[in-house]
Amino acid sequence: MTSVPLELFWISGSPYSWRVMLTLELKQIPYTARLLEASKGEHKKPGFLALNPRGKVPVLRDGEVVVGESLAIMQYLERKHPATPMFGRTPREAGAVARVISEFDAYLRAPLLRVSTPFLFRKSGEKADEIRAAIPELHDELEKLEEAAAHSSWLAGNESGAADAAVYPFLKLLLRAAAKPEAAAFDLALLPFEKRYPGLAAWMERVEGLAGYDRTYPPHWRELAVV
Amino acid sequence: MTSVPLELFWISGSPYSWRVMLTLELKQIPYTARLLEASKGEHKKPGFLALNPRGKVPVLRDGEVVVGESLAIMQYLERKHPATPMFGRTPREAGAVARVISEFDAYLRAPLLRVSTPFLFRKSGEKADEIRAAIPELHDELEKLEEAAAHSSWLAGNESGAADAAVYPFLKLLLRAAAKPEAAAFDLALLPFEKRYPGLAAWMERVEGLAGYDRTYPPHWRELAVV
Repeated sequence: MTSVPLELFWISGSPYSWRVMLTLELKQIPYTARLLEASKGEHKKPGFLALNPRGKVPVLRDGEVVVGESLAIMQYLERKHPATPMFGRTPREAGAVARVISEFDAYLRAPLLRVSTPFLFRKSGEKADEIRAAIPELHDELEKLEEAAAHSSWLAGNESGAADAAVYPFLKLLLRAAAKPEAAAFDLALLPFEKRYPGLAAWMERVEGLAGYDRTYPPHWRELAVV
Repeated sequence: MTSVPLELFWISGSPYSWRVMLTLELKQIPYTARLLEASKGEHKKPGFLALNPRGKVPVLRDGEVVVGESLAIMQYLERKHPATPMFGRTPREAGAVARVISEFDAYLRAPLLRVSTPFLFRKSGEKADEIRAAIPELHDELEKLEEAAAHSSWLAGNESGAADAAVYPFLKLLLRAAAKPEAAAFDLALLPFEKRYPGLAAWMERVEGLAGYDRTYPPHWRELAVV
């Protein structure tokens, strides 16, 4: 262990940041959260660009080591803190975890974000055609994931791990988007989620029951929920 | 070790398959190559769909274990055959390797494929606007990778590894596309590559000098080269 505590640079609501926060909680690694205000462009200022020239979160700083990209940070943490393995205990498990993550990133993430982000940024009017075009692909992929979720407690096997941490924040983002008033004008066919995708809904509840989950929840989502 | 030899289902010219073949050679793992003929739709036939319902290559079969998705197969092989580590020897190295792969997949792969594939499938006429739109982003990302290549022998540190295996096949695909006669009508600004991107060109030569590289070269590319 270094004497400097682990620092995570993140933005509230960033699903990529959330992946790493869930990883840190699952591994019970203490860290200092360095919240950047996206609305103030803090992730594009020189101090942060020195850590990641792309100006993207999350970034982890561990003493002299700086790691960017959510999955790379998760791999770094797996090696640095192997006590709670999250990428599988055997070669077979490792392949299964990595496959869920690769398939999510390759096939589900893009249509999910095409459907979600316009509602989160109040652009569903101008992006209506793109949203509608992405809906069938989104459901095709959700159905595949539902199949996996319906047959085991966690996305890759019988233990929570990197696959769950990598996928959950994006599904939560999708459900947040689907609950926006503007979404009612679209036939998203996502809600009530526990009826449409019962396996995934039950899995999300399991994630939300994990120790430390509350500390990972985007703070500005709570504020808006009060309004 | 299982008694059944490792089998790799692949398609000639698939950069995702090539990633795994380079991994197998770097780790000196014997395997049986099961070549599927894409032109005959062999990857969409029931026998293969039973291994991967998505009908995508590569797929690795190791006795009873079946793994799909190139990066997941690479992780599986890393765990099963750890003698030649390709994902880093320390946490810091692991983070660096994973970051190069994540950044490639997130930022460079898409523009690279948007520029390359139309030439490989003789669709550069109908895709001309898309090709031209992707060129600036392609060069932005190539310049970042050139920076990395110019400062070390391999993409993530001083040893060949997963970052090299994951990225190389796509750059080779890009150069093959750029050399097509139809590409002359576009200002791709890629050739001669050793002048445009000397660090990357030297790195590609190093990859091509690795033991076993020749066995990974797409066989149908050789045939066409003779024509």
